[in-house]
Amino acid sequence: MSQEPPTGDNVSSDFIFGTMATDARRLGYLRAELAGVSHRHRIEPLDPEPGQPVTLSVTLGPAVAADRLTIYYTTDGAAPGGRRGAPDPGTFAVACERLASVWDTLLWAYTEEWQGTIPPQPIGTTVRYRIEAWSTCDECSAMASEIVGSTAGDGTVLGDVGPGDTNLRELGREFSLTFVRGARTFAYRVDEERTPAWLRDAIIYHVFVDRFAPGGGRSFATPATPMGFYGGTLAGVTEQIDYIAALGVGAIWLSPIFPSPSHHGYDATDYFSVEPRLGTGAELRALLAAAHARGIRVLLDYTANHFSSSHPVFQSALRDPASPYRDWFTFTSYPDTYVSFFGVADLPQINSDHPAARRFMIEPALYWLQQGVDGFRLDYTIGPSHAFWTDFRAATRAARADSATMGEAVDTAEILRSYTGRFDGCLDFLLLQALRLFFAFGELRPSQFATFLQRHLSAFPPGLLMPSFLDNHDMNRFLWVSRGDVRRLKLAALCQYTLPHPPIVYYGTEAGLSQERDVRHPDGSGHPEESRLPMLWGEAQNDDLLAFYRRLGALRRETAQVWRGPRRTIFLDDARGHLGHLCGEPGAEHLVAINNGPADARIALPDGRCSLAFATTADAAVSGATLSLPAYGGAVLRQG
Amino acid sequence: MSQEPPTGDNVSSDFIFGTMATDARRLGYLRAELAGVSHRHRIEPLDPEPGQPVTLSVTLGPAVAADRLTIYYTTDGAAPGGRRGAPDPGTFAVACERLASVWDTLLWAYTEEWQGTIPPQPIGTTVRYRIEAWSTCDECSAMASEIVGSTAGDGTVLGDVGPGDTNLRELGREFSLTFVRGARTFAYRVDEERTPAWLRDAIIYHVFVDRFAPGGGRSFATPATPMGFYGGTLAGVTEQIDYIAALGVGAIWLSPIFPSPSHHGYDATDYFSVEPRLGTGAELRALLAAAHARGIRVLLDYTANHFSSSHPVFQSALRDPASPYRDWFTFTSYPDTYVSFFGVADLPQINSDHPAARRFMIEPALYWLQQGVDGFRLDYTIGPSHAFWTDFRAATRAARADSATMGEAVDTAEILRSYTGRFDGCLDFLLLQALRLFFAFGELRPSQFATFLQRHLSAFPPGLLMPSFLDNHDMNRFLWVSRGDVRRLKLAALCQYTLPHPPIVYYGTEAGLSQERDVRHPDGSGHPEESRLPMLWGEAQNDDLLAFYRRLGALRRETAQVWRGPRRTIFLDDARGHLGHLCGEPGAEHLVAINNGPADARIALPDGRCSLAFATTADAAVSGATLSLPAYGGAVLRQG
Repeated sequence: MSQEPPTGDNVSSDFIFGTMATDARRLGYLRAELAGVSHRHRIEPLDPEPGQPVTLSVTLGPAVAADRLTIYYTTDGAAPGGRRGAPDPGTFAVACERLASVWDTLLWAYTEEWQGTIPPQPIGTTVRYRIEAWSTCDECSAMASEIVGSTAGDGTVLGDVGPGDTNLRELGREFSLTFVRGARTFAYRVDEERTPAWLRDAIIYHVFVDRFAPGGGRSFATPATPMGFYGGTLAGVTEQIDYIAALGVGAIWLSPIFPSPSHHGYDATDYFSVEPRLGTGAELRALLAAAHARGIRVLLDYTANHFSSSHPVFQSALRDPASPYRDWFTFTSYPDTYVSFFGVADLPQINSDHPAARRFMIEPALYWLQQGVDGFRLDYTIGPSHAFWTDFRAATRAARADSATMGEAVDTAEILRSYTGRFDGCLDFLLLQALRLFFAFGELRPSQFATFLQRHLSAFPPGLLMPSFLDNHDMNRFLWVSRGDVRRLKLAALCQYTLPHPPIVYYGTEAGLSQERDVRHPDGSGHPEESRLPMLWGEAQNDDLLAFYRRLGALRRETAQVWRGPRRTIFLDDARGHLGHLCGEPGAEHLVAINNGPADARIALPDGRCSLAFATTADAAVSGATLSLPAYGGAVLRQG
Repeated sequence: MSQEPPTGDNVSSDFIFGTMATDARRLGYLRAELAGVSHRHRIEPLDPEPGQPVTLSVTLGPAVAADRLTIYYTTDGAAPGGRRGAPDPGTFAVACERLASVWDTLLWAYTEEWQGTIPPQPIGTTVRYRIEAWSTCDECSAMASEIVGSTAGDGTVLGDVGPGDTNLRELGREFSLTFVRGARTFAYRVDEERTPAWLRDAIIYHVFVDRFAPGGGRSFATPATPMGFYGGTLAGVTEQIDYIAALGVGAIWLSPIFPSPSHHGYDATDYFSVEPRLGTGAELRALLAAAHARGIRVLLDYTANHFSSSHPVFQSALRDPASPYRDWFTFTSYPDTYVSFFGVADLPQINSDHPAARRFMIEPALYWLQQGVDGFRLDYTIGPSHAFWTDFRAATRAARADSATMGEAVDTAEILRSYTGRFDGCLDFLLLQALRLFFAFGELRPSQFATFLQRHLSAFPPGLLMPSFLDNHDMNRFLWVSRGDVRRLKLAALCQYTLPHPPIVYYGTEAGLSQERDVRHPDGSGHPEESRLPMLWGEAQNDDLLAFYRRLGALRRETAQVWRGPRRTIFLDDARGHLGHLCGEPGAEHLVAINNGPADARIALPDGRCSLAFATTADAAVSGATLSLPAYGGAVLRQG
């Protein structure tokens, strides 16, 4: 291994859900959510098919004095409109029904639940809708709005905020975020799209291109700061395609490859070409060919929420008050201040509901699908609207029937669930947090972890994949937070690979790559680049760990029973840290056994003979009806 | 008037829901509520009748690792029991079904919703039940528990707390309360009991006996401190029965009349006699006769949660370790510390689930019903269990078919709702808070108040009355917090009397009684007795206000249309403070018009001729289609 295990005190605890990390922020979030007319994309069914009526749920916050609720919808793609129950020409209206007053102790007020039903629509229909709460006796009407965490950094609240939004303002202040609220158009599409089987079955390898492989016999550069360029290229990835394939990988997720001034690329200046530092269009096509030849799909990292302030479209909007692009952004005070990603002025946020801006942000995706790309990892999906993603999905599926989308939303389970039918999957940050708490920090007991897992897995519909991961480019690596303990990393990976959803491996984690300093310091400064150190190659790699990851990949590919089908807890010992799950359909069940404790374990096995199919350590053994597992060891057993 | 209007700064804002007054306390409350197996008396239907199956809802908190939930119930009065799904002999078991994982952003965890159904039972059956969450794979089982705010003052958590209850402990510390948790037996009774019509139709007059009328030509005493005895008596109340009757009153609520060392009587030393200072049993019977002769019912104030530490039963428990009464209390360290009402050692809390203690606390109520009392105002109902109140209701209804119960629970709407079928009504502290915020403090806009009213009134089933009040013996009087503004008091009373539920008038409020100092000081000391100053009589009374209250009582008695039947807002002006509700069945509608603003109002009336039926001021007038109301003036108009 290239790094010494970190010493104790410089490893920070996780800070994954930054905007929801404290009670005050969660309170602010919940209050903001209920400040007005709150729909939160609650439709039933979540992913409507032809012939199904769709029931919408709406909550009226304490400050909304309305006694009528109307849904205005169109089925022809036009923007729906209406007022006080009367639809505009071409728009249909649905009167909603008041269901119940609900006392909310936290708000110390009542909210009100309403529902309305849009009739069944034929396949291929995109239903666009708005929601109006209004009053028969006064002007207290309000259009449904959604909160969009955004970027001005000045705490300003934009749009149709209305009375009672003090907490929203306070929340904005705490976050240094702008909440853009206003009448929103929602949408869903009636289709029969299914999650592609290849994504469901894939192990995904996450390549941070500048840090992976320079290729052509070159070494990594040694930039002055970790923010500099290390020289990884697409050709380097192609050269290592067999290294990746040997991990059992079914898909590669490439970090952004579009032209950009930064090493990370999340600030594109163009969406139709390849950043020259990383390679050429031909080199990308060569990578696609090499990957496809090995049955490996390729996902591009795609940011629709914002691009670089150097992007010509934003430069036009900034310099020319009459620019047609000015409305693509939200200027709070033209041209000086505008809504941007987490207040970073270099990353202006795009108004995803502007028709031309929307088209502009969807077209490149179609182009890359035509070039042979297989799908997208979508950055910061809570920025653009659900209506945007509904259109994005329809367009990309039309361009390529088995293309896939995987969204990044660091948000609540309710929000993740609302992407069903918009994405094929959502990166599972909640599982990430639990895996790290249990396996790296030891801050969950087995019963807590097992309970979380059971409830978490049942909280999402089958139509939404939840790809799992142990670390990524925005946080301390797992091996860092486990203080260099490879046993814990192997045990966490065993758990990850035996869960139902596609496991993602962040480049280098399989080879023992860690870091030298903490990503986050208590003073707030931190070293975010530490999670993106250059890949280890050759002798720098931890061969034992790498061999383990290869065997683990083979296990997942060859023994789907360990991750498909039902799961149930069959042993659990909070004091000792033992946890056992029986996985798979009856008759082909496997036992995943975990000793997440510091002492060697001897675990009595259930009835029936078991044999060791896989273990994280050579010291695991089955003798008669007893499984022996050393500290932080795990195994998969097959019955019979 | 006897008092000068208070000057500005010494009037405190309200502090009604003390244990839920801050975000931190509400968070603590919600977390404690969900820390374990949380039933919260959620049964459907709320008040089961013969032939109805009863569905129970249960929430498993994040720390409960269970995959089975069993309800154990009996129908013969015996205590139900069972373990891991197997009922004890004589107990029935119902296996419950897991409905859903629910993400809770505040807890940052999943809870789980379960339901089970107890089959229909014949009339007169009391169903007693316990709920066990258990696991097929381990010992992580837990019996359902409920949180009981209690009184030790040391923050100790008693009983079966289990893992994950850190927040409960913190909550205990903040409150100086003890939370007694543990396996609880719940109960409901299958009957066809209805709320007595006399209570539904009554205006209730709340007499604080020591402070109302000495009688026999005597004046009030002048005790050294306001904690002393002023000399009010039952005979004094009888003498003033026509004064009370002239207010249109249908029921008198007497503050506690049992022997007690205090002026307030909420610390009884005996439940079967009358405190000699207040009178004799004969004098009580005379009061009952005088009241009944005028069609007025009499409610006694009854405390089942605690009694005086001087009560012989507690003295026995304290002095004799072998006392049969020792188990009637919860000694945390015998004999020195025990659970008591809000930590007050003089008020030991009674274990309402101890069979003998329960009988002991129910029998006096039956005795007083036999003596001619009509029902009870029940103190601090969240102390005793719902199973206690289920038995209390069954016993009191058996003793007297039209007896009534009215509970005091300063708690959430969900808790109030759970008393349906246990009480005929719950004192409406939530409405109290809104009425004072709107009319006294001016801190709600008309739209907020109207929205609260609409949602609040629809949040409770018809079977639960919610008697309204503007002030009581535990808080600043309304006239104090309105800074002596009688206009605002009249307007609030007009609103109160035109709402559906029985209005309560606290003695003296109708006559201009206020106070001289604030009940609550910022330093926490305060002058709680200020809300219990001696009644004003004769020339000290505000004749205009008294006449108003008499007319208002007549309005409510004679024009049920203004408070029965549907209500809808027909005008509302947040800027000016105007609010108008159309009340009653079509054809007999009345318009209740409120000007809660500082300027004279001219309000355009809806179609149809209207005439003034009632006004808070002689300056109100209808001219053509315009209603004129002076500042803080209100009126009732009839159509036609």
